[in-house]
Amino acid sequence: MEPITLEQAIRRIGPADAEARRRAESRQLRLTKPPGSLGRLEQVSVQLAGIFATETPRIRGQAVIVAAADHGVVAQGVTGYPQAVTGQMVQNFLQGGAAVSVLSRLLGVRQMIVDAGVAGEIQDQPDLRRLGAGHGTEDITRGPAMSSRQAEQCLTAGVNLAVEAAGSGADLIAAGDMGIGNTTAASAIAATLTGRSPRETTGRGTGRTPEELEHKVDVVQRALAVNRPDPGDPLDVLAKVGGFEIGVLAGVVLGGSAMRRAVVLDGFISGSAALLAHQLCPATQDYMIASHRSDEQGHQAVLARLGLFPLLDLGMRLGEGSGAVLAMPIIRAASACLCEMATFDEAGVSDRDKNETPPESPFR
Amino acid sequence: MEPITLEQAIRRIGPADAEARRRAESRQLRLTKPPGSLGRLEQVSVQLAGIFATETPRIRGQAVIVAAADHGVVAQGVTGYPQAVTGQMVQNFLQGGAAVSVLSRLLGVRQMIVDAGVAGEIQDQPDLRRLGAGHGTEDITRGPAMSSRQAEQCLTAGVNLAVEAAGSGADLIAAGDMGIGNTTAASAIAATLTGRSPRETTGRGTGRTPEELEHKVDVVQRALAVNRPDPGDPLDVLAKVGGFEIGVLAGVVLGGSAMRRAVVLDGFISGSAALLAHQLCPATQDYMIASHRSDEQGHQAVLARLGLFPLLDLGMRLGEGSGAVLAMPIIRAASACLCEMATFDEAGVSDRDKNETPPESPFR
Repeated sequence: MEPITLEQAIRRIGPADAEARRRAESRQLRLTKPPGSLGRLEQVSVQLAGIFATETPRIRGQAVIVAAADHGVVAQGVTGYPQAVTGQMVQNFLQGGAAVSVLSRLLGVRQMIVDAGVAGEIQDQPDLRRLGAGHGTEDITRGPAMSSRQAEQCLTAGVNLAVEAAGSGADLIAAGDMGIGNTTAASAIAATLTGRSPRETTGRGTGRTPEELEHKVDVVQRALAVNRPDPGDPLDVLAKVGGFEIGVLAGVVLGGSAMRRAVVLDGFISGSAALLAHQLCPATQDYMIASHRSDEQGHQAVLARLGLFPLLDLGMRLGEGSGAVLAMPIIRAASACLCEMATFDEAGVSDRDKNETPPESPFR
Repeated sequence: MEPITLEQAIRRIGPADAEARRRAESRQLRLTKPPGSLGRLEQVSVQLAGIFATETPRIRGQAVIVAAADHGVVAQGVTGYPQAVTGQMVQNFLQGGAAVSVLSRLLGVRQMIVDAGVAGEIQDQPDLRRLGAGHGTEDITRGPAMSSRQAEQCLTAGVNLAVEAAGSGADLIAAGDMGIGNTTAASAIAATLTGRSPRETTGRGTGRTPEELEHKVDVVQRALAVNRPDPGDPLDVLAKVGGFEIGVLAGVVLGGSAMRRAVVLDGFISGSAALLAHQLCPATQDYMIASHRSDEQGHQAVLARLGLFPLLDLGMRLGEGSGAVLAMPIIRAASACLCEMATFDEAGVSDRDKNETPPESPFR
């Protein structure tokens, strides 16, 4: 497919197909099980029906887009690991040794790695995409992270990564991140777009002690005071307190939605990217699946703002798209049950007495 | 492998390998991620290391044993579906149209279906195993469900099904059930072995109204009053208020543990079977993985008694092993991350400053 612009992507995003959702709900009630007994799997299957506009929403391919970038705010001492780790982990992704790589291999997910703005130079290699918007953001306690032009460049790149993933057959597209310092940027974005205080949206990240957390809250407060991002203007929020990888992932959410694919969010960083995408185009919400509840403090506020309920709650807080990839078999299971289970009629199984009062709808 | 007796199985069950667990914990700390950031996956990987007695516990095959049987207590009007559904669903399993069949196919799990005592006659077919202990239990509000001999026959059959599954390469063995009326039996078992009241261990099953639930609580109370099962004698509990499929699944837990395989529990019914196995041999606890938290009320009491924390919480209440099979990719993911992720040294990724205070152990 030809690359598309950010505006084209946003124009293409419409609501999910309500009629396909209704047909899927009705089909669920005819499958050989008590109504609602597959719980969240039934709800996810109905969401997929709405996204793919069919009552039998089959999943062919799966991809995870992992965007990596550095953050100038690490100069403020907000992280437990040195900045060099971002680039080193990109190599680790490409060599297949990182958690997301192992999970992607196990679960049949195509890994797409993008250098969205890592500080050092990473050697060219066939499976590495480059954005070239910059080499790490500026320190957000001293001014904006990036220019408006760079912010738009990230979003457009993300849109077209999702378009490419969709074009290569991915029906589930996960958004993963890598970036030493990026929980600080995500906390600033989340505070701006949810209206909560930095204390509520800031977690420990890779830090350990209560003092480190206090310091990080202070850094986020200073970043917001210095930059005063406009909550009504997501591009402004991204440029002032965001990150290159966060912009790319917000673009992935928009591009995936424009292509009518299910966008599988990971944890706090990809959630903050989803907040930006949602602010740019609220209809993206129909296409989002929250894979897991991160152990990172601010994630709860993000999920609440987006009205999403995560599938998994396993105390994970790694990023990389690891939670999103891990949830993919659950999403595929939801699809498979709806598409492949026999109905009562087909299987010759007796349904309950149809004269009884109808069950409460399981499709909350 | 030759069939083994119940006593042989119990004698073989020893504790998990503590040294392999320690080596796995130590390996987790060297993998390229912040310590503990894979949450429950790390804990599961360490459990697998203890079960398989190696710091790199790889999973080859996976099987689900689905045991089906009928319950005389349906004469008391405790269910939403007619008794004929048990046998009809066995056919549905064999034809691949049931939820567990669809999930097993999707996730590469071998489905082993056993008629543990269905009321009607099911036609012979290649993939159907038969136990032949009876055609449905007696009504437990009027006397014992089965004889002691039948109870032992079920347990032994389950042991050898697990031995067969293990022999054919399954490292994860799930326990699934089908039996109209079996939540009533499971409630009676759970009340006896957890010491809680029938009101706490009885849920709606396939019933719908508050009146139906009240009636079911009363039925469980009467079954316990009539039979007075001895909580110290699990064979007595199984014979008096159990079910053929529940006995088989208790045997599966014992056989899987004896073969040092991970036994993946499903919901309330397989949990009540695990309670029986645990009472017969407490070391089985080391081999149990709770796949999900069922929406069925009594399951919580079962999990608490067994000291297990479920991986998934998706509002499911179907049985058949559906939750257990759905959790298998999560368990495989735990194994794959431990076995295949690169260490900091291997990947050339900088670890955090080693002079810092060590992190809290994530292996609670």
